[in-house]
Amino acid sequence: MIRVILLGAGNVAQHLYKAFYKQPAITIVQCYNRKGVRLHPDQNENNVTKNIASIKEADIYIMAVSDDAIKTLSSQLPFTNRLVVHTSGSVPMIAINNSNRQGVFYPLQTFTSDKAVDFAKIPICIEGDQEKDLFLIERLALLLSKKTYQISSAQRNILHVSAVFVNNFTNHLFSIGNDICKENNIPFEILHPLLQETAKKALEINPNKAQTGPAMRNDTKTIARHLKLLSDPSQQEIYQTLTKAIQSKYGKKL
Amino acid sequence: MIRVILLGAGNVAQHLYKAFYKQPAITIVQCYNRKGVRLHPDQNENNVTKNIASIKEADIYIMAVSDDAIKTLSSQLPFTNRLVVHTSGSVPMIAINNSNRQGVFYPLQTFTSDKAVDFAKIPICIEGDQEKDLFLIERLALLLSKKTYQISSAQRNILHVSAVFVNNFTNHLFSIGNDICKENNIPFEILHPLLQETAKKALEINPNKAQTGPAMRNDTKTIARHLKLLSDPSQQEIYQTLTKAIQSKYGKKL
Repeated sequence: MIRVILLGAGNVAQHLYKAFYKQPAITIVQCYNRKGVRLHPDQNENNVTKNIASIKEADIYIMAVSDDAIKTLSSQLPFTNRLVVHTSGSVPMIAINNSNRQGVFYPLQTFTSDKAVDFAKIPICIEGDQEKDLFLIERLALLLSKKTYQISSAQRNILHVSAVFVNNFTNHLFSIGNDICKENNIPFEILHPLLQETAKKALEINPNKAQTGPAMRNDTKTIARHLKLLSDPSQQEIYQTLTKAIQSKYGKKL
Repeated sequence: MIRVILLGAGNVAQHLYKAFYKQPAITIVQCYNRKGVRLHPDQNENNVTKNIASIKEADIYIMAVSDDAIKTLSSQLPFTNRLVVHTSGSVPMIAINNSNRQGVFYPLQTFTSDKAVDFAKIPICIEGDQEKDLFLIERLALLLSKKTYQISSAQRNILHVSAVFVNNFTNHLFSIGNDICKENNIPFEILHPLLQETAKKALEINPNKAQTGPAMRNDTKTIARHLKLLSDPSQQEIYQTLTKAIQSKYGKKL
């Protein structure tokens, strides 16, 4: 049995609550957050506190709070030498106040509050300062997902910047595609199968081998025509920057 | 019964051959290509020609050839006033020599020669100069896919540039994510679920509403740290260009 206390009340805290609650091998001893709100309608009010001094004893304290709050909150905890982990992709483990034992429990996915999450499909990146703590964090992670990876703070930083390319920047390209279509009365749905296939391919083969398009072919006529079609300077700049990047990456091989 | 002649021997021609061959309402009268190769191992050699003068009669001639070849090939055809269409996303319909009736039959998907294609899921963009021709092209398209859209040459151009963002540029961002992980001994597989979720979200909600990340939050500390982590100037430039674009797009709303 792993006794867990959840700190925070945001999306990650709520999704973790639901996932932990389902596992017989996990007991959620208590939840702490500044407003003392429940993380789930079924949660017993007695198990929620907004009083940091009344936080109970547990095997692991999970701070599912904003990046900026990790340092302060961890320094305010009214106990020492217990295992405290955060759930952030970009904050180093040692940001946690060293009056307690430090660790990381980072589920790598975008969470939306109203959308159900299947943790079995989510990679969990874990880190622990002490070996016995790392084992406990690993056991907890494996109860949710077999995709559990031991990742250092430095590697987690790299994963985070990589995620910005794969998720945030990719979504911006999708939004440009969507905007251009809308402006010209073309249903963006026409591009949905291509979008799906692009993502599917990247999972099946190395994206370096899947690269196609005017930049890859060095098709200067099409590139010039496309740049003329784009009226938004920001879209033009992105088109030029990415075209140049593709050409310089693969140009050497031509 | 629609009688079809396929011109060309590339990926699109091969995939169209397979798809047409399955349809009882379609007869592939003949295939023409410069080398006289069969498009399928089962194809009867008598139905293949490399002699342009011996092209037979059909209801529709489909030129599945490279963009540059459309103008020349269409001007060499040894007949007039028949329906000739191309399959290109970026060439205007009127590039087809006007000695014949013009049209477009553009399946919007990336084709890989060794990968089976389910045409039922592929949008087909059609265009025709004359109404009766457009009807025939539409009938032919609907036999393969219910996702058939009437799209003008101008709109097709917009779709094509939009597809470059959604497919080619997106794939380059995936390849950067992959490269950064590889260089740091992190399995790119950890990012696969995030990549899938990003694409899935774009199909379910407007990508403008799905935008997240450091640029969106204007999290200058994280942005600065990410830029330091990137050693490749091309990756840095893409990071800066896209961050600026996201900030200027959504900044107004903040």
